Amino acid sequence: MGAAMLTGVITEILIPVAAVVGIAFALLQWLKVSAVKLSPERQPPAGGNKKNGFAADFLIEEEEGLNDHNVVVKCAEIQSAISEGATSFLFTEYQYVGVFMAVFAVLIFLFLGSVEGFSTKSQPCTYSKDKYCKPALANAVFSTVSFLLGAVTSVVSGFLGMKIATYANARTTLEARKGVGKAFITAFRSGAVMGFLLAANGLLVLYIAINLFKLYYGDDWEGLFEAITGYGLGGSSMALFGRVGGGIYTKAADVGADLVGKVERNIPEDDPRNPAVIADNVGDNVGDIAGMGSDLFGSYAESSCAALVVASISSFGINHDLTAMCYPLLISSMGIIVCLITTLFATDFFEIKAVKEIEPALKRQLIISTALMTVGIGIVSWIALPSSFTIFNFGEQKKVKNWELFFCVAIGLWAGLVIGFVTEYFTSNAYSPVQDVANSCRTGAATNVIFGLALGYKSVIIPIFAIAVSIFVSFSLAAMYGIAVAALGMLSTIATGLAIDAYGPISDNAGGIAEMAGMSHRIRERTDALDAAGNTTAAIGKGFAIGSAALVSLALFGAFVSRAAISTVDVLTPKVFIGLIVGAMLPYWFSAMTMKSVGRAALEMVEEVRRQFNSIPGLMEGNAKPDYATCVKISTDASIREMIPPGALVMLTPLIVGTFFGVETLSGVLAGALVSGVQIAISASNTGGAWDNAKKYIEAGASEHARALGPKGSDAHKAAVIGDTIGDPLKDTSGPSLNILIKLMAVESLVFAPFFAAHGGLLFKIF
Amino acid sequence: MGAAMLTGVITEILIPVAAVVGIAFALLQWLKVSAVKLSPERQPPAGGNKKNGFAADFLIEEEEGLNDHNVVVKCAEIQSAISEGATSFLFTEYQYVGVFMAVFAVLIFLFLGSVEGFSTKSQPCTYSKDKYCKPALANAVFSTVSFLLGAVTSVVSGFLGMKIATYANARTTLEARKGVGKAFITAFRSGAVMGFLLAANGLLVLYIAINLFKLYYGDDWEGLFEAITGYGLGGSSMALFGRVGGGIYTKAADVGADLVGKVERNIPEDDPRNPAVIADNVGDNVGDIAGMGSDLFGSYAESSCAALVVASISSFGINHDLTAMCYPLLISSMGIIVCLITTLFATDFFEIKAVKEIEPALKRQLIISTALMTVGIGIVSWIALPSSFTIFNFGEQKKVKNWELFFCVAIGLWAGLVIGFVTEYFTSNAYSPVQDVANSCRTGAATNVIFGLALGYKSVIIPIFAIAVSIFVSFSLAAMYGIAVAALGMLSTIATGLAIDAYGPISDNAGGIAEMAGMSHRIRERTDALDAAGNTTAAIGKGFAIGSAALVSLALFGAFVSRAAISTVDVLTPKVFIGLIVGAMLPYWFSAMTMKSVGRAALEMVEEVRRQFNSIPGLMEGNAKPDYATCVKISTDASIREMIPPGALVMLTPLIVGTFFGVETLSGVLAGALVSGVQIAISASNTGGAWDNAKKYIEAGASEHARALGPKGSDAHKAAVIGDTIGDPLKDTSGPSLNILIKLMAVESLVFAPFFAAHGGLLFKIF
Repeated sequence: MGAAMLTGVITEILIPVAAVVGIAFALLQWLKVSAVKLSPERQPPAGGNKKNGFAADFLIEEEEGLNDHNVVVKCAEIQSAISEGATSFLFTEYQYVGVFMAVFAVLIFLFLGSVEGFSTKSQPCTYSKDKYCKPALANAVFSTVSFLLGAVTSVVSGFLGMKIATYANARTTLEARKGVGKAFITAFRSGAVMGFLLAANGLLVLYIAINLFKLYYGDDWEGLFEAITGYGLGGSSMALFGRVGGGIYTKAADVGADLVGKVERNIPEDDPRNPAVIADNVGDNVGDIAGMGSDLFGSYAESSCAALVVASISSFGINHDLTAMCYPLLISSMGIIVCLITTLFATDFFEIKAVKEIEPALKRQLIISTALMTVGIGIVSWIALPSSFTIFNFGEQKKVKNWELFFCVAIGLWAGLVIGFVTEYFTSNAYSPVQDVANSCRTGAATNVIFGLALGYKSVIIPIFAIAVSIFVSFSLAAMYGIAVAALGMLSTIATGLAIDAYGPISDNAGGIAEMAGMSHRIRERTDALDAAGNTTAAIGKGFAIGSAALVSLALFGAFVSRAAISTVDVLTPKVFIGLIVGAMLPYWFSAMTMKSVGRAALEMVEEVRRQFNSIPGLMEGNAKPDYATCVKISTDASIREMIPPGALVMLTPLIVGTFFGVETLSGVLAGALVSGVQIAISASNTGGAWDNAKKYIEAGASEHARALGPKGSDAHKAAVIGDTIGDPLKDTSGPSLNILIKLMAVESLVFAPFFAAHGGLLFKIF
Repeated sequence: MGAAMLTGVITEILIPVAAVVGIAFALLQWLKVSAVKLSPERQPPAGGNKKNGFAADFLIEEEEGLNDHNVVVKCAEIQSAISEGATSFLFTEYQYVGVFMAVFAVLIFLFLGSVEGFSTKSQPCTYSKDKYCKPALANAVFSTVSFLLGAVTSVVSGFLGMKIATYANARTTLEARKGVGKAFITAFRSGAVMGFLLAANGLLVLYIAINLFKLYYGDDWEGLFEAITGYGLGGSSMALFGRVGGGIYTKAADVGADLVGKVERNIPEDDPRNPAVIADNVGDNVGDIAGMGSDLFGSYAESSCAALVVASISSFGINHDLTAMCYPLLISSMGIIVCLITTLFATDFFEIKAVKEIEPALKRQLIISTALMTVGIGIVSWIALPSSFTIFNFGEQKKVKNWELFFCVAIGLWAGLVIGFVTEYFTSNAYSPVQDVANSCRTGAATNVIFGLALGYKSVIIPIFAIAVSIFVSFSLAAMYGIAVAALGMLSTIATGLAIDAYGPISDNAGGIAEMAGMSHRIRERTDALDAAGNTTAAIGKGFAIGSAALVSLALFGAFVSRAAISTVDVLTPKVFIGLIVGAMLPYWFSAMTMKSVGRAALEMVEEVRRQFNSIPGLMEGNAKPDYATCVKISTDASIREMIPPGALVMLTPLIVGTFFGVETLSGVLAGALVSGVQIAISASNTGGAWDNAKKYIEAGASEHARALGPKGSDAHKAAVIGDTIGDPLKDTSGPSLNILIKLMAVESLVFAPFFAAHGGLLFKIF
């Protein structure tokens, strides 16, 4: 079998070094963003975009209103309102989340502790029956600790992301005065701060936890990595709150602000007199930044945990080959370095000089990071793995070569790119699918909705084939470990993915701030261009999140099945089949809840906005400041209240099914929810994205065809607006939340597997 | 093990007798309907609804316009136009379908014949290796014959149903002059003609085929019943054409007629000047009558075939116990008798005297037939089954008692009732779900769509649990045979189900004819009341169709797995899992195609209607007759052309997957398509039904709340109309077609199983 080229000591050094480099890079980017001052001082003249003589060929970049101190003051004011709102949301959310965390931590301890009746005696290991492993009670304690660790890391990641985003948005607006290139770099750098902080933090905390746990567990790697899976559960359960709560929040505020402001009061979008406008802007940060961040952090933590727990019972684990064992962490470390180089291409090597260069620059980020990472994976696989080893495969050991593992990771990475590009094709208004949807608005909202739904359904086909091929190849080469590292491969460029993703809502907010601060039409045009590119990248980010969620869930599912000591999940047994069909139903149940929640929460917001307009004197005239905080509080409370039922559905299902119906039925539920949920998630996200961009296509009027459908206010445009509104909860609430549903049920099952295996299936035991 | 109480000879007599009784009853009903004369003679005064003194308490039924000969002539004219259109559709459809049938028959022969290289030598049996069975070539020939038989029976059933419906609609209109009770009975009797003809024909043809095949097969029951499965495939593949083509046809005509007639030309709905109005009315018969009829006929044929093929390798088959073997046919025979008695409750025992009695009368039909049938199943199980026997269960023999089989059939029957009532709850405007959707129209079409989609998702929950419980119980009691007979149980009252279902479009057409013939407002009100009740029963019918499709598919899937000699379908193998996830994607792909098809076909219709209005002089003034046939032809051609891609997807997928990827992957595809498709089918049907009835709720204005939303033309009503239009393709095209998708792929796999088992999985064999 041989050993890896990299010694254990070097591995122990490389991983934290990569994480620290990532954090340092994030801080460096933050420093550069903070150079844009939010106080009314004379800015140093920006010569950057003048040094290249070709600039004039694309778009003449003129500096606008740099000396208008009033604007800077206004921007600072608005930003602080958004930041205040975000903080208000976070604090309320943390109160609820804290209670949940405490209760669930106790549950984990009780369930896992009861496996061996809270005995403190060592037990024979599950897989190596001749050895003794740490008692189940230790597993209970350490699982609880790693759950809390994962939860706190996720919360901190979300908090930091939101803080950075709200720190950057006004600065992007101000930079837009100097030109689109400057604004782009500010928004992108801020996204990078979040991306690198999240990726590096996730890796570092996991690394430290493993090393601390090792102090107790020593050579019992089986127990150690089983306990570590709590980290993924913690991360993912916080992501559930982030995604569902954030999704409801942002859409309630959005719809509420529009219904009263635009329709009843006839004031423009993003007008500072609208009490819900800050909540709307906060919502972008809450849903798209914090939600997406904790979602992807959860995926990252879960795929790492899935890979580690499967690896711990493979030849790596049995031979205590630390370097090979840490292969997943080394891949992530390499990812940070690769993304660091990739970021320089956007911020330093090239320069954006015109609007139409923005989207290619963002797409180039994806391609460069994928290409570089392929080399990176090759290097890691070559130096960190023995040339041949065995992998646990449902009771058997499967022989695997290091280059086979390279293929597993690489196929996940490239499948991610394929999904990204397909998503772009179906949601960008540069291509025919969205243009067809826009065209269908001619005959009204009904045809728009029919064509939009059909587009979403159709957009599922290629991503599913891409996922299926990745699964088949990686599964065939390295069993469930192959799937886990394929998921890691898709997530290895997470820092770049998050940077691109966070860039979108930051630009969106920047546009809002420009409007609210009453800045010139030119500046608004620049931020709109940034925003349009951000829309497509947001859809790509969702595509990645869903694709990786599918792979991660399958890996977790495999780890659960291994841990629960099932060797087959036979669809032909009634226990499994009913699980399968009920599991396939869960995403529908969940979506029904979340979609109605958005509707209800939006109505509450409407009431409050109306109340403020009616009761605050001078508000309409702009003489009085609206009570932003109340709207923010309403959105916060409503979203947190409304997210309890869907949250309970996701968190309780594995517990109830596992306890009463046992591990076979639970396996069916997980498989059913996975194969059904991934379809709805993809179609919902893409349908919503397409409607949004079909509306934008008509509004922008960039082609003959688009102008024939427009302008704003035409019948076709009205039909497009209806589609866009329907798409809001689909693409920002129910669709992306389904990622968490499928991942969270799988990781929860994995954590509770020892309990279910020992005491589960009560109902069948009674009858 | 013992033998059944019923001797083989009596069984041989009872089954055809029941079938003949059913046919005779259908003819009797037809005779009664034909008593309504469509020629302008003085009708004998109808005293029926006057003999009961209580009639006046409900609604005073007055005879209206009985002497207006002109109206009768007009009705006859319109009816002949609809009938002409229907015939025109059928003939065009048969040309295409004939080609398909011939090609596919050749395919079946070639694939199955090649299993043993077209050898005419007897082969060892698949299950009893010591015995010799007929050669694979015989299986190829007889499968092809039974395929053609099933296809022809399905086509004839659809044709007869459509003929009867178009024969009855004008008669219902004329009877509506005498009162709502008379009209109800005419419509219901006509539905019964179709229901009984279809159920009895299906049974009789199957029975005759078995007896004819037995002349060749003799004691080789394994081969005999394997060949019989072609009957299910034939029935179901015709149903695919019926459902998809009919669905596209009816919605293209509907949308096309409305867009030009109501919107552009400002003439009322169902106005005879509109060239597409006949196509629209034909569409109702094509989609809802013929489509639903062949769908349910397909389910019936398939569940019978699935039960027979599984039974043939159980102790019945091995011991050649004819009565027990014919248990599925005896259940169907009993069903005909039970439905006959049930029908009398609607037509003879009670009398409808007021509008509000209609819906309860129809619901009573469901309850009475279910209650009586439970007793019927008990009797059949007691006299036709040995008290104990064994059932083939994936390689093992499972011991089953006769009362256990009773439970299997009964649970299917009652699950159908539960699904029916849940569907009613979610789609009838008497309950809060639809009222909530109507209420959401206050804030526009977007909220209407969001609430409607959420309602559809939510409506999936209980039916899925009902299906899951049926599966678990029947599977646990009698393995796959249990599932097959549970499906049969759900379909055992098919005659009543179809009668109720066909009643809807007949009433709908009757209303259209009343409008076109310029009859009084009162009469239109009566037909509208019939139609409203029909809307809900149509939704219930769809619920039944989907529920039974799920059970039937699973039974076929089980039979396929048995026949392909697989003993486990393990989700944990990559071959199966990729099948599962791709299978779960297929319903989305299929829906994307069908929904876009409706859009495209509707646009073609719009062009033609515009052309006629512009080029036929005197058309708008009512001096010239529009060219109905061209619109019918356009709808026909478009629908048949548009149905080729989705049809090819369904028909080719099992062949491609089975041939290149093998039976394991195909099993995964079938399971995935089943668990995913059933959810989309239920939610699409119910969402569409709810939108339709939310619109009707606002239009009818029967409550304070409804009046606040209305009247016709209000903003809320406009929003409701948009929802209704979106729902059209969901509930009448893509949703119900998914039944066929999941059933057809399963039965096709079953028929081709010997080929796949022998030569399938080429791709894996090469690599």
